[in-house]
Amino acid sequence: MVKIAVMGYGVVGSGTVEVFYKNLSSIETKIGDNAEIKYILDLRDFSGTPYDDKFIKDFNTILNDPEITVVAEVIGGLKPAYDFVKSLLEAGKSVVTSNKELVAEKGAELLHIAREKKVNFFFEASVGGGIPIIRPLHHCMSANEIDEIAGILNGTTNFILTKMINEGMAFDEALSTAQKLGYAERNPAADVEGHDACRKICILASLAFGKHVYPKDVHTEGITEVTLEDVQYCNDFGGAVKLIGWAARRGGKAAVMVCPAFISEESQLSSVNDVFNAILVRGDATGDVVFYGKGAGKLPTASAVVSDIIMAAKMHGNSKSLYWETSDGEFILDYKELKNKFYLRLICGDKAAAVKQAEKMWGKVKILHRDQESENEIAFITEEVSERQFESDCAELAKSAEIKGKIRVLDY
Amino acid sequence: MVKIAVMGYGVVGSGTVEVFYKNLSSIETKIGDNAEIKYILDLRDFSGTPYDDKFIKDFNTILNDPEITVVAEVIGGLKPAYDFVKSLLEAGKSVVTSNKELVAEKGAELLHIAREKKVNFFFEASVGGGIPIIRPLHHCMSANEIDEIAGILNGTTNFILTKMINEGMAFDEALSTAQKLGYAERNPAADVEGHDACRKICILASLAFGKHVYPKDVHTEGITEVTLEDVQYCNDFGGAVKLIGWAARRGGKAAVMVCPAFISEESQLSSVNDVFNAILVRGDATGDVVFYGKGAGKLPTASAVVSDIIMAAKMHGNSKSLYWETSDGEFILDYKELKNKFYLRLICGDKAAAVKQAEKMWGKVKILHRDQESENEIAFITEEVSERQFESDCAELAKSAEIKGKIRVLDY
Repeated sequence: MVKIAVMGYGVVGSGTVEVFYKNLSSIETKIGDNAEIKYILDLRDFSGTPYDDKFIKDFNTILNDPEITVVAEVIGGLKPAYDFVKSLLEAGKSVVTSNKELVAEKGAELLHIAREKKVNFFFEASVGGGIPIIRPLHHCMSANEIDEIAGILNGTTNFILTKMINEGMAFDEALSTAQKLGYAERNPAADVEGHDACRKICILASLAFGKHVYPKDVHTEGITEVTLEDVQYCNDFGGAVKLIGWAARRGGKAAVMVCPAFISEESQLSSVNDVFNAILVRGDATGDVVFYGKGAGKLPTASAVVSDIIMAAKMHGNSKSLYWETSDGEFILDYKELKNKFYLRLICGDKAAAVKQAEKMWGKVKILHRDQESENEIAFITEEVSERQFESDCAELAKSAEIKGKIRVLDY
Repeated sequence: MVKIAVMGYGVVGSGTVEVFYKNLSSIETKIGDNAEIKYILDLRDFSGTPYDDKFIKDFNTILNDPEITVVAEVIGGLKPAYDFVKSLLEAGKSVVTSNKELVAEKGAELLHIAREKKVNFFFEASVGGGIPIIRPLHHCMSANEIDEIAGILNGTTNFILTKMINEGMAFDEALSTAQKLGYAERNPAADVEGHDACRKICILASLAFGKHVYPKDVHTEGITEVTLEDVQYCNDFGGAVKLIGWAARRGGKAAVMVCPAFISEESQLSSVNDVFNAILVRGDATGDVVFYGKGAGKLPTASAVVSDIIMAAKMHGNSKSLYWETSDGEFILDYKELKNKFYLRLICGDKAAAVKQAEKMWGKVKILHRDQESENEIAFITEEVSERQFESDCAELAKSAEIKGKIRVLDY
């Protein structure tokens, strides 16, 4: 009999218990043993629910119970989740988690403890909700070098951008619609400023490149500056504005960034709408593979947690290959060294002069148009230019024109 | 040291050896041991290639070498692959294969032998080339009941349909273009008549439902009857014609079919173009998840074979859950019991009378249009009707009108 504890009975935690008991007989077949959830840890009172007898309030009950071999951490955040998970792994219990902040900040350390203790630390639910991505990246593509990853990793911002693109809503209106529907929190900063997407690309990049990518080292821009005008120009470009988390090998280092980007309509990522997520993985042998689905939600995320519980319950010993090392700040390339194409929107007195100046700096530019374009507005796409050069060029350009929009053009 | 044999040195076999040695150091890390390919079995002469000393012509050399623990079968077809694989599993060696015909016809039997002998039979490369689909379906979605699967499973037919849709090529011209580019074989029957897609949906359905679905029990229609006119009407419908292999639970039985279908442009499957494949998996907890990528090609397929080699090399004992049982003919629902919407294109003297007759049989129909629609042509979409009823209704309708096009409308 495999005995499991679930820590946290919020949306994902209650979903985990629900999915576990709904599919128990097929889960037991897959594990090859009987299984039960012995404890549910939550400080709140859930008396009267069907799992009344399982609720506990003291973490040490789980830590000190030798019968418990697998624990699901679905509390979220670093405190107290980090201390809990660390103690459990050190006590020789496997842990599975949906906690992206925990994995993005402490993954290397926790994976190392799990290896030492010959147990497992799994986190399929931390990226892409119910989309299988961690295990396919690690297992099925194990014969590939992963060169690049690019993803629409945050459903809230993708919903907002979809409303702007398809219904012409301004950012604020789209955000408040998302809040009304429960897709965005009252304080939407973690989503709209890109921090949530940043944590997820850090996890994917760490796994793909074998060294920890820390959120603090990743240049992160959100979507708060994206305007309806930008969205309209992107339509003329032939694509859609998406918030992209991406990571690529550059020599022995990793380039990692989160930013809004123009994505061509030929890309599989451009047609990913509403709260859906998609992750493109570029392998040296497979070419581009895309994983698409609901990136959040109670049951999709819970099903990923339960599939990790099954894996942890049936696996004897540590999964040697699900691992990455710690790294120092040197591993991440300074983003200013990167080269990108840019979309730029200007307000200026002399459009011809502005284009002339732009072409002097960046070579031939591609002019874009939109309906009801104002008379002194001009928008275009540059050739590739280094981030550092572009920044100083823009400072120069800003002397004679007002820069109203600036978005990277990415090729995924 | 893990010693491996590769049987067959065609496109996939030579790719397997190439990918294996290119990534050997990371493969050995993942296996946790040194590894080498000891034998390559092929009756043809490959002297002068870099792996000269590994080629053998006698299968028994592999069978009788106790050092060989993992064998990749990439010969294709049933003879002699089936006898070889069966003997190897019976001798206690794990086998990985890209051979869809072998898995679709003999999967249950071979999985059973592997289980008895405590070794593994893996086949990630048999569906979707380099797209990870078998293992995600089996592992990562293990907490889900899989209710339905629908896929664009054949790159050749998808290339042909894309040429028809985007460039207005007729079927014959698109087929000969595919042949010139090496995407279609000189005898294209297995692709264009749907047999290749049928084998793949059989494998996916067997895995998802836990019972073997045999190709002979699956109603299979290819794309040879799809015309440019149909493609144009589908454009007015708001979607694309795709060859879909699909499988769904219906009570205790399975509904499985391969057929061309109108797919709405809102579906992620409608934007899958050229030789790409995509597989939609509908789980009870995850909702729809889509896997997209190159469904064929030397290196993508080889990378899937090598990832199975890695899994087989590092795993001790049989993967208990990658398994399905044999089944009798009763498991598959007679397709005539299924209900579908249909697109129908008619040539008739009296269009109004034809519509009236159609609506009498099938309720309100949705009329479609196209440019240069001929005067006595009419096309529409019906409401849901049983296949059996529709067939007899069409026989009735054919008395007063000529049925020129008949394609299912599927909701994926």
